[in-house]
Amino acid sequence: MSEHRAIIETSVHVRYAETDSLGIAHHSSYVIWFEEGRSEYMRRERESYDALQKNGVFLPLAELDVRYIAPARYGDRITICTWVGAVRSRSVTFVGEIVKPETNQVLARARTKHICIDTQTGQLKVIPQQTRECLKRYLVPGEG
Amino acid sequence: MSEHRAIIETSVHVRYAETDSLGIAHHSSYVIWFEEGRSEYMRRERESYDALQKNGVFLPLAELDVRYIAPARYGDRITICTWVGAVRSRSVTFVGEIVKPETNQVLARARTKHICIDTQTGQLKVIPQQTRECLKRYLVPGEG
Amino acid sequence: MSEHRAIIETSVHVRYAETDSLGIAHHSSYVIWFEEGRSEYMRRERESYDALQKNGVFLPLAELDVRYIAPARYGDRITICTWVGAVRSRSVTFVGEIVKPETNQVLARARTKHICIDTQTGQLKVIPQQTRECLKRYLVPGEG
Amino acid sequence: MSEHRAIIETSVHVRYAETDSLGIAHHSSYVIWFEEGRSEYMRRERESYDALQKNGVFLPLAELDVRYIAPARYGDRITICTWVGAVRSRSVTFVGEIVKPETNQVLARARTKHICIDTQTGQLKVIPQQTRECLKRYLVPGEG
Repeated sequence: MSEHRAIIETSVHVRYAETDSLGIAHHSSYVIWFEEGRSEYMRRERESYDALQKNGVFLPLAELDVRYIAPARYGDRITICTWVGAVRSRSVTFVGEIVKPETNQVLARARTKHICIDTQTGQLKVIPQQTRECLKRYLVPGEG
Repeated sequence: MSEHRAIIETSVHVRYAETDSLGIAHHSSYVIWFEEGRSEYMRRERESYDALQKNGVFLPLAELDVRYIAPARYGDRITICTWVGAVRSRSVTFVGEIVKPETNQVLARARTKHICIDTQTGQLKVIPQQTRECLKRYLVPGEG
Repeated sequence: MSEHRAIIETSVHVRYAETDSLGIAHHSSYVIWFEEGRSEYMRRERESYDALQKNGVFLPLAELDVRYIAPARYGDRITICTWVGAVRSRSVTFVGEIVKPETNQVLARARTKHICIDTQTGQLKVIPQQTRECLKRYLVPGEG
Repeated sequence: MSEHRAIIETSVHVRYAETDSLGIAHHSSYVIWFEEGRSEYMRRERESYDALQKNGVFLPLAELDVRYIAPARYGDRITICTWVGAVRSRSVTFVGEIVKPETNQVLARARTKHICIDTQTGQLKVIPQQTRECLKRYLVPGEG
């Protein structure tokens, strides 16, 4: 990918508990790795995350789409790449890729759509502007 | 749904370990429940499953799409409904729904596409005919 | 075990996601099954559980000891047997067994010690009397 | 701990999926972290691990004891410290600690006993000498 893209990267090892009887990482493990990629974004953009709590909203997952391309195996060091595919007033879409760093091979790709919900009422709300501004810095248009 | 549909049903309790800090079931838990729904199909149609092994093929997950509608909570008894959305020569799509039986509310809906792979070579293969015939008995067209 | 013992039983299937590369259930899966056994106790003795919340206390896990005897495999129907090993003023010990019902073989055995903690202050508290009375009905002395 | 001890250290973030409705890491998550600590040992002592496979044996978990001292929370960076508590001819005991690096507070401590099993026959076997020699370099006597 081109250098100007703001992509969040973090790395983990495939754990033994994450494998299954086929000897490869179970498909639910990737779902957790994609979330860990979004958590890394939250850790780096702490103020953006705090703005959600100050405004009494959160961003639960509404849609999850994963394409599995090649298996990850026990002990593999994998890189989780995360960016923003779309920012709308009441929703945001993250894109994630699980990559084998030695070969740059993409093992899986996900799109997760999150809606902005009022913690008290459960109603749909507008994403706080500070959070939206921050998310847009990680936007790669046409990928959401 | 109409009575003539062949739908596989199985029920589980939401486990404490399946919840997260929001106090609701984590989104990865649903992914595991949908697989448990497909496992129930395999248990009921044992011969269809054995035909895969006899032919040296298996049906790994290639695509996973989930729509989350309402949260499941610790201790909830949930029903997993599973049927077949599409059967092609080299792939099959299952559809799953997580339902709260008291209200018939659908909490989440998934579509999983599985491709038929040769256990030895990793090549794409035709699904054994016996398996395909069986899958078609659970087919609800237009849903895959 | 003798007939007069009050033992809580519940059954689950071993899930595919619960297996690992060895082709057997991962050791962390048993830990979750033992908790599901204790949850079944809570569901059956709802008032005992509600008394905890009314008194503003909960029973977090302080000690966990598991002995693994034989493997569980994908699809196995297993029974989780749960009883109380010891009740003290500020702690309770549960005992759990994972059993294969066809053969009565014990696959694993656990002891979990829970302490009574004030939800607000985090201080050690006395277990509410109603809860203790209920726990004692499931007591098998000399097993805690 | 004193400098001359050979302790394996690795660090992870507490994942959101690893928390539960109490807002803290679920007790089964620690079990997986302790295994990740032992995996780090295997990665660093590759030859010791390969010697197991060459000799057709593996080291399944037979006993697991965990003491939970203080909770880990979502996003916490935790360090997993792993060493060897005892090496016998047919078994090895690992000790693990989950530590908060900022305060050096121990959140949990585990002892895991592994027996040496023949992959083909399932019989108890002697641990290969090369593996035992390696394990002994991480031995902290009196802790197993």
